[in-house]
Amino acid sequence: MAQEQLHFASDYQEGAHPRILQRLIDTNLMQTPGYGTDEICESARARIREACAAPQAAVHFLTGGTQTNAIVIKAVLQPYQGVVSAVSGHVSVHEAGAIEAGGHKVMTIPSESGKISAAAVEQFVADYEGDDNKAHMVMPGMVYLSQPNEFGVLYSLEELTAISNVCRRHHLPLFLDGARLAYALACPENDVSLADIARLCDVFYIGGTKCGALLGEAVVLPNPDLIPHFFTIIKQNGALLAKGRVLGIQFDELFKDNLYAELCKTAIDCAHRIKAALQEAGLPLCFDSQTNQIFFIIDNEKMKKLGEKAVYNFGEKYDESHSIIRFCTSWATTVENTEKLCEIIKSL
Amino acid sequence: MAQEQLHFASDYQEGAHPRILQRLIDTNLMQTPGYGTDEICESARARIREACAAPQAAVHFLTGGTQTNAIVIKAVLQPYQGVVSAVSGHVSVHEAGAIEAGGHKVMTIPSESGKISAAAVEQFVADYEGDDNKAHMVMPGMVYLSQPNEFGVLYSLEELTAISNVCRRHHLPLFLDGARLAYALACPENDVSLADIARLCDVFYIGGTKCGALLGEAVVLPNPDLIPHFFTIIKQNGALLAKGRVLGIQFDELFKDNLYAELCKTAIDCAHRIKAALQEAGLPLCFDSQTNQIFFIIDNEKMKKLGEKAVYNFGEKYDESHSIIRFCTSWATTVENTEKLCEIIKSL
Amino acid sequence: MAQEQLHFASDYQEGAHPRILQRLIDTNLMQTPGYGTDEICESARARIREACAAPQAAVHFLTGGTQTNAIVIKAVLQPYQGVVSAVSGHVSVHEAGAIEAGGHKVMTIPSESGKISAAAVEQFVADYEGDDNKAHMVMPGMVYLSQPNEFGVLYSLEELTAISNVCRRHHLPLFLDGARLAYALACPENDVSLADIARLCDVFYIGGTKCGALLGEAVVLPNPDLIPHFFTIIKQNGALLAKGRVLGIQFDELFKDNLYAELCKTAIDCAHRIKAALQEAGLPLCFDSQTNQIFFIIDNEKMKKLGEKAVYNFGEKYDESHSIIRFCTSWATTVENTEKLCEIIKSL
Amino acid sequence: MAQEQLHFASDYQEGAHPRILQRLIDTNLMQTPGYGTDEICESARARIREACAAPQAAVHFLTGGTQTNAIVIKAVLQPYQGVVSAVSGHVSVHEAGAIEAGGHKVMTIPSESGKISAAAVEQFVADYEGDDNKAHMVMPGMVYLSQPNEFGVLYSLEELTAISNVCRRHHLPLFLDGARLAYALACPENDVSLADIARLCDVFYIGGTKCGALLGEAVVLPNPDLIPHFFTIIKQNGALLAKGRVLGIQFDELFKDNLYAELCKTAIDCAHRIKAALQEAGLPLCFDSQTNQIFFIIDNEKMKKLGEKAVYNFGEKYDESHSIIRFCTSWATTVENTEKLCEIIKSL
Repeated sequence: MAQEQLHFASDYQEGAHPRILQRLIDTNLMQTPGYGTDEICESARARIREACAAPQAAVHFLTGGTQTNAIVIKAVLQPYQGVVSAVSGHVSVHEAGAIEAGGHKVMTIPSESGKISAAAVEQFVADYEGDDNKAHMVMPGMVYLSQPNEFGVLYSLEELTAISNVCRRHHLPLFLDGARLAYALACPENDVSLADIARLCDVFYIGGTKCGALLGEAVVLPNPDLIPHFFTIIKQNGALLAKGRVLGIQFDELFKDNLYAELCKTAIDCAHRIKAALQEAGLPLCFDSQTNQIFFIIDNEKMKKLGEKAVYNFGEKYDESHSIIRFCTSWATTVENTEKLCEIIKSL
Repeated sequence: MAQEQLHFASDYQEGAHPRILQRLIDTNLMQTPGYGTDEICESARARIREACAAPQAAVHFLTGGTQTNAIVIKAVLQPYQGVVSAVSGHVSVHEAGAIEAGGHKVMTIPSESGKISAAAVEQFVADYEGDDNKAHMVMPGMVYLSQPNEFGVLYSLEELTAISNVCRRHHLPLFLDGARLAYALACPENDVSLADIARLCDVFYIGGTKCGALLGEAVVLPNPDLIPHFFTIIKQNGALLAKGRVLGIQFDELFKDNLYAELCKTAIDCAHRIKAALQEAGLPLCFDSQTNQIFFIIDNEKMKKLGEKAVYNFGEKYDESHSIIRFCTSWATTVENTEKLCEIIKSL
Repeated sequence: MAQEQLHFASDYQEGAHPRILQRLIDTNLMQTPGYGTDEICESARARIREACAAPQAAVHFLTGGTQTNAIVIKAVLQPYQGVVSAVSGHVSVHEAGAIEAGGHKVMTIPSESGKISAAAVEQFVADYEGDDNKAHMVMPGMVYLSQPNEFGVLYSLEELTAISNVCRRHHLPLFLDGARLAYALACPENDVSLADIARLCDVFYIGGTKCGALLGEAVVLPNPDLIPHFFTIIKQNGALLAKGRVLGIQFDELFKDNLYAELCKTAIDCAHRIKAALQEAGLPLCFDSQTNQIFFIIDNEKMKKLGEKAVYNFGEKYDESHSIIRFCTSWATTVENTEKLCEIIKSL
Repeated sequence: MAQEQLHFASDYQEGAHPRILQRLIDTNLMQTPGYGTDEICESARARIREACAAPQAAVHFLTGGTQTNAIVIKAVLQPYQGVVSAVSGHVSVHEAGAIEAGGHKVMTIPSESGKISAAAVEQFVADYEGDDNKAHMVMPGMVYLSQPNEFGVLYSLEELTAISNVCRRHHLPLFLDGARLAYALACPENDVSLADIARLCDVFYIGGTKCGALLGEAVVLPNPDLIPHFFTIIKQNGALLAKGRVLGIQFDELFKDNLYAELCKTAIDCAHRIKAALQEAGLPLCFDSQTNQIFFIIDNEKMKKLGEKAVYNFGEKYDESHSIIRFCTSWATTVENTEKLCEIIKSL
């Protein structure tokens, strides 16, 4: 039965951090105005601004990642512009065409381990600018990346700074998707702080759904002028919650007492244990991920055996007899279950 | 101060019915698959199908009203079609252009007390069909109404049946917006059941946000063939929650033990008390609303005085010295506070 | 047979002014670069800039009216904005939803004889600005009108100036649709010159299709900064002709030797004759049109009789026994045929 | 100076076949109804149906290639679907994002010399169908190719038949872009007739702009049911010409007396001469093109020298010292000028 299996398929399988549920109970009969104009949302915004060292930032709460990516991109781009992304970027492959539905091309550039580089962005822009036919082509209008990226890999501060520099030289807003940002912040290897992100990016979001909230993503605009009338845009795109405080509660708790920075430390520790077990079992990693997603190659027979005891996420066919699959730890993962999984891995 | 005032401005000012919060706690560490494919969502769907006597219905959970209206309309219409609505219909005036952003014209028809009639739909279709230039015009592609309507007024079963008949004769899907449906169901005057709606409409939604849920609207397609691939459409439009079970929990509780049908009875009782007080105070009602929204005309001086003690919703200017304002009771409204409000009204 | 009838149904029933055809022949084997970058287009642009006394203006050639209206509106508006128009404005009723397909609401305001007024625009903006819920509503983003308007009626210089002043005070770009502009310019009553339009409007187009060209509309942006990257926008919207010179030829001829200003004088003269005949026959005019469109009310029996001898354009039902129909003269209308039509009218 | 140079940059540099100009003159004062409902358009449609052996086909006239591609794709696809194309397909790279502006992803598959294969389509569909997450992805909804393709290369009847078979097995409409179809039909190597195309494809267009018309593309729907209400869709997308007969004239002439099949024979002959000259000069071809586009690799120094005497189309950088450039013959190209070009090539 499913409940006897160990679940390591994704980081949105549990509910929310208990403090969030408690806050929902504590505030339940408070009467607040709607649409995120309430005091709880204001408090959450203030905490986020402080954590990002971005006192002027606008903060908007949306409900999920695809929605946030689609709306931010649509709001930043002009109709004749596209968004530059890694081929493997989430907006390129996993949004069911949401970006294109908003009218924009995803302009893919080469990447390594899912990371784009300042040089690749520079080259792409140079190719466009140098093209005689550029007026017949989509203009690159912003750059998208995620931290950690689609494969759980981190950008270093040096890398992110270099990309930011290229973007600013070419007046391309830089958008950082932080759906799993708490997992980056919890990594010992990570040297990119929230304040760095707020300084280097033009718009980014702090993930809630995969990081201990029931739902919610907090979009941060260090300079609010980047997107005028964002409130109306959010409404028009069906992303404005009437009971906006539900989202405010998530982030007011996540950003109280440093919770967001601490929340995922166990998840990272557990991911390291799993990587060690995979190594011991001779199952090669696909990417040198520092965060909570572990992609590895496995013989199909072993995969079948593994599947009897643990729930993983299938990636794709690697070759005729091997597959790429993913384990994912979460803010709710326990060391105990992780140790059980490690034993299973070693026994394959 | 705000907290000393009586709040009767809207029905989304409180949190959720306590049973919903309890369920969130009880299920918090359950591990479920994402995107509404979990067992809680399945249970909620089964309960809704049963309540609607629509065993074949597809049920999808979205997060809010504007989102639901925009996505359903976009999914049902062909690009060259528009949606027929009352001038005062929610999709016509209060969605920040969400319907047009999806590419469709809202085609307005006359209404009385916010209600459209079978005759008005028939006439509109006849005018279109009889127009020599119809190929140069937007084709009516579906009909939208809400129960209760924008002014809290109910369609009778006879009226809804007549509209449904016209729609079916012209192959126009009929879409019922039930953002406040629980308030309709709680009315003694109401003779339209969920099963009637499922029988007479082609797509409708059961409101959660304004009816005791933290958030959520349940779209019901009695015949799922009306919108193929609706799951992907929801995803593409940024409306698919990763932790879909959060929505499933809302509706699984609301549809357990007849809660949805009972939940708003006090709200209706309180609305009747307020109407009686307004009548006693000589403040004329704008519409003969049977539900929880009460629109009335008030002298601006009295409005100012009222505003010191109670929070209402401003409608619009009536004439130089009068305004139209709205009181709104909710599933969380108490008789005690209502009585206080009635005293204030009478003392104006 | 059709060829025996007199055709007064519309102003796009004939081909083009002979000079345009001659120029097509003269230039046929010239080899020019594509997409409107050729010398003929440049010459046409220079002539239009001169005629408009707008030396800095950008001039773009598109192929038809719906296309031009849709693209200009989409290019000027932000996604959360709508276009303000008379209820009877062409963009409101006769574009098959092209404006909405571009994502924008047509926000209708009251009009008289199809003309909007500065006061009505002012009121509409004031209502929006004063609405507590304006962030939930579509923002007025530009104003649309046509000269002559949908019913052939002219704006006076005073009226246009007043509207322009309101628009500039509220930073609303003013867009003038000049699909039939040559008919306005040919009217003795007209006191609005091309230079006035270029001074008072932010974007407008000079109609070719209905004014002696095979096809084509010339969009003029007195200040090109209003729409950056308009070339790419035109391309993206499928409106860029590879053989752009075909359009350049139309306007290079129309703006040579004052042709555009002279071209429609006979049409206006003929329209006056028809109006006089209608008056004599006791058929009341619907609007006091100064240009080439004449809307009048006719008994259905007479309409039937008329239809045996002349082709008109059916407008709409007036009452049970009367209809509104339109005669339209064109740049190619002859006095001879007009006199025949007048005889028919008088004999009804 | 430019006029002394030989022009081989593209096939839309001249006007139109003289018969088309003559027809414009002959019909100039005919009065016809608008929007393509006239007798000339009807005649052109009848000729095209006959040439395609598709008696039931619907034929619609649009003005240009980007417009036609964008509208056909938007009209065929559901919002959640994308169009499958070669990476090098015109819709993928040269439409300024027109397809995405219509809301759809261009889903690229591998190609050889710009040609997709039945196997590549089959594989792409299989990958999609086999993906556990397919409901989160864009669904392939149609297949796009052009004949000749972007590099002037022809699909054989066998290849096109195989692709058609795969498409029909998977219910994917097959769309053939025939912007340069006359050049394919004029090739001795070509074994795909118009009737074959009408039999194997679900929608295609016959290019006019690049094939001797002033402007215009004829969309053919062998089974009109594929796109209901296409007239209104064309109007809504701003592609309906008021003087539709201008387009009808182009195609009525092109399809009279077998002109369309004969028109480009000289262009093909001239292209062969140029290819021979390039070979003699040791300038390698990039693709084995059978039609009027010749892509070849040239040393940058020679390119500069060539540019003084002939106008070519720049493709892209090949390596540090070489470029890829294109010569293009047209229906108006003369053997005399071609021989001059060949001499220049040989003398480089």
